Amino acid sequence: MFTEIIATKRDGKALSTGQIAEAIHKYVRGDIPDYQMAALLMACFLRGLGRRELRDLAQAMIDSGERYDLRSVPGMKIDKHSTGGVGDKISIILAPMVAAAGGVVPMIAGRGLGHTGGTIDKLESIPGFNTGITGSQFRRQLERIGVAIAAQSKRLVPADRKLYALRDVTGTVESIPLIAASILSKKVAAGNEGLVMDVKTGSGAFISTPAWSLELARTLVSLGGALGLKTVAYLTDMSQPLGRAVGNALEINECVDALQGHGPDDVMALTIELAARMLVMGHIAGTMAEGRRKAILTIEDGSAYEKFLQMVEAQGGDARSVADTRRLPIAPVLAVVKAMKKGYVARIDTHAVGLASVALGAGRQRLDEKVDPGVGITQEKKLGDQVKAGEAIFRLCARRKSQAEDLAVRLKEAVWITEQRPVVKGLIHRFLE
Amino acid sequence: MFTEIIATKRDGKALSTGQIAEAIHKYVRGDIPDYQMAALLMACFLRGLGRRELRDLAQAMIDSGERYDLRSVPGMKIDKHSTGGVGDKISIILAPMVAAAGGVVPMIAGRGLGHTGGTIDKLESIPGFNTGITGSQFRRQLERIGVAIAAQSKRLVPADRKLYALRDVTGTVESIPLIAASILSKKVAAGNEGLVMDVKTGSGAFISTPAWSLELARTLVSLGGALGLKTVAYLTDMSQPLGRAVGNALEINECVDALQGHGPDDVMALTIELAARMLVMGHIAGTMAEGRRKAILTIEDGSAYEKFLQMVEAQGGDARSVADTRRLPIAPVLAVVKAMKKGYVARIDTHAVGLASVALGAGRQRLDEKVDPGVGITQEKKLGDQVKAGEAIFRLCARRKSQAEDLAVRLKEAVWITEQRPVVKGLIHRFLE
Repeated sequence: MFTEIIATKRDGKALSTGQIAEAIHKYVRGDIPDYQMAALLMACFLRGLGRRELRDLAQAMIDSGERYDLRSVPGMKIDKHSTGGVGDKISIILAPMVAAAGGVVPMIAGRGLGHTGGTIDKLESIPGFNTGITGSQFRRQLERIGVAIAAQSKRLVPADRKLYALRDVTGTVESIPLIAASILSKKVAAGNEGLVMDVKTGSGAFISTPAWSLELARTLVSLGGALGLKTVAYLTDMSQPLGRAVGNALEINECVDALQGHGPDDVMALTIELAARMLVMGHIAGTMAEGRRKAILTIEDGSAYEKFLQMVEAQGGDARSVADTRRLPIAPVLAVVKAMKKGYVARIDTHAVGLASVALGAGRQRLDEKVDPGVGITQEKKLGDQVKAGEAIFRLCARRKSQAEDLAVRLKEAVWITEQRPVVKGLIHRFLE
Repeated sequence: MFTEIIATKRDGKALSTGQIAEAIHKYVRGDIPDYQMAALLMACFLRGLGRRELRDLAQAMIDSGERYDLRSVPGMKIDKHSTGGVGDKISIILAPMVAAAGGVVPMIAGRGLGHTGGTIDKLESIPGFNTGITGSQFRRQLERIGVAIAAQSKRLVPADRKLYALRDVTGTVESIPLIAASILSKKVAAGNEGLVMDVKTGSGAFISTPAWSLELARTLVSLGGALGLKTVAYLTDMSQPLGRAVGNALEINECVDALQGHGPDDVMALTIELAARMLVMGHIAGTMAEGRRKAILTIEDGSAYEKFLQMVEAQGGDARSVADTRRLPIAPVLAVVKAMKKGYVARIDTHAVGLASVALGAGRQRLDEKVDPGVGITQEKKLGDQVKAGEAIFRLCARRKSQAEDLAVRLKEAVWITEQRPVVKGLIHRFLE
């Protein structure tokens, strides 16, 4: 009786390995109705899951579908995953960088969610870029060039697709164990052996409190270990957008700049740190210092950019629009948010910036909507920057002037300017392994 | 967005009056899917509901359907409701007794649930007895004879029918606020002005711990007051079946005995106490002592039995099978559970007795099953009774000898006999108003 499984978790007791396997197996097969799984998910949300239960859940999810066999690809397979932020385009610079330094990066990435963008949506703003490659295409591309970025296929962890869709409509998304199982089941099924997690914290993150972010990072490291996936985690700052660009083609443009050696400081600092960590995990660098040197070298000698072009071509993208980013479908600037007074940028409501970008069309308000690759926001002043009254803080690339102007008015409220220079938090708050 | 309502309760915050009304209204209309309501019910189960929220929930449930208008019936309308026990046939004796003393008893009763029997199933073992009378038949019968016992119609609190079916399959039945709202919404919708609750506690009750029973009783009294339904509650003992008979026609037989002045002591004591309370609430008796005297008189002068016969006839039942209970469809005794040793009956697993009765066919294992009116169990020895080795403790009225014998073996385990005379708990543990 499935109600007994629900009642066990409801009463705060642990579910057995067999109960968890049965629940996931039957749910994916359609033998357990959504309403029973919804009750169980809410009980898991409120009662939590122990370490053994969480491992069993993730394992049952992995077992629900196909598992990529990457044994034919030499080298240790290491991915990076972010919990989601505004302007977080790191993966698109990082993956080719690590591959250029000799690593193997089988990356399964997501679409925009809520107020944040997604790597898959960003890559699809490159005309022709195919993120829907099959498991064998994925494997062959890794054998050939060491890097591939693909959307989750329907056959990879079908339990996660079905559970996520249900969680989304039953108020059970923001649960640390359920989030951890969702992320790591996909990484293991995709054939990864190591994972660097980038857990975002601050006004632009899904998880805005430091305690919650830390708990999620700890859970990810522990669950990864239990699943045989070596996992480390960074807690990084999301109290302002990463870099300057927010929006799909705008961010691809910024990635190309970064790969050509002209990236914004924060984007480069975080990318190099994460790349060095992946190179150390993959035994390509002996120390973090060596890893950083190797990562920087791939930018200086052009090999990271070259690897990116190889990936774009391998996945059917138009390399010309990368070489000449004026070919990217970027919308015109139709509104500017200006500083009301002189001073320092002291605080940014990054969640509001993300929502404004979604409202312009860069993200989805419903699952079945298409994103507009060309719209978005560029942030001209970062936290701590000095501004004069009337200087531009944000520029809005939009399709309709009235919409851009309305959002510009709203975004004025998302910036705080102070007379005194603010203390700006460091980008990397913490590292856990 | 309904997910916001779910998330509010999930996070332990109170739902507004409007949110609760919207949730119930849309759920009954089919505009909220079962999986979303299941998640909300589990959040309510684990986070609880405040007093105001609970009143709003019960009110929204009442508003979901028809409400009986009993203003044409003179006198204060008072019902009694039990949370369910084994052998609990009190309503069938009590309702005509109170009506005979001048009270008005509009009783909406239930069917057997889990290991317990139901008043409706018991009455239906009287050939022809119609429990499915309409609202206007119900009102006219009350005008004429002051008592009617009917099953819940589909138009009375449809929200409760739909919510209860969902709770039953999502592990959300045993929640004090949800139980209280379910009971009281029906009582208010049926036109009651006062209610005496009999909250059972002990091995045969749904709620077996004293603390839980007390909490439910307190919640019922408080919620009743908030809904304008004067509610008092007794906590009564269910550590053995009430009376001797367990099973539908067997219990009707015992009720007729009781109405004719030959009821078992525990049944009579509890019925007279509850009747006296209803007479006091209905301003027919000034004190409990007067209420008890009036109640006892209805047995002694035959008026309670006369009222019962009027009710049976009014609802289409065969009065001959009541006058001569040999006409009731009672199955033969096919097995006997005997005392293994001499001593005193010290403890009875009343839940096991209830389950054995259901297994014989007196209750349902599935919602769509029919009950067998004739089968059941009679308990020959009560707690504290002295027994000799080999004396009968239970007799099983059954259809198949092998089944009766199998169950008799199991029931041996449900009785503990000790050498020392046990301390037997009083029947009435507590009264709250």
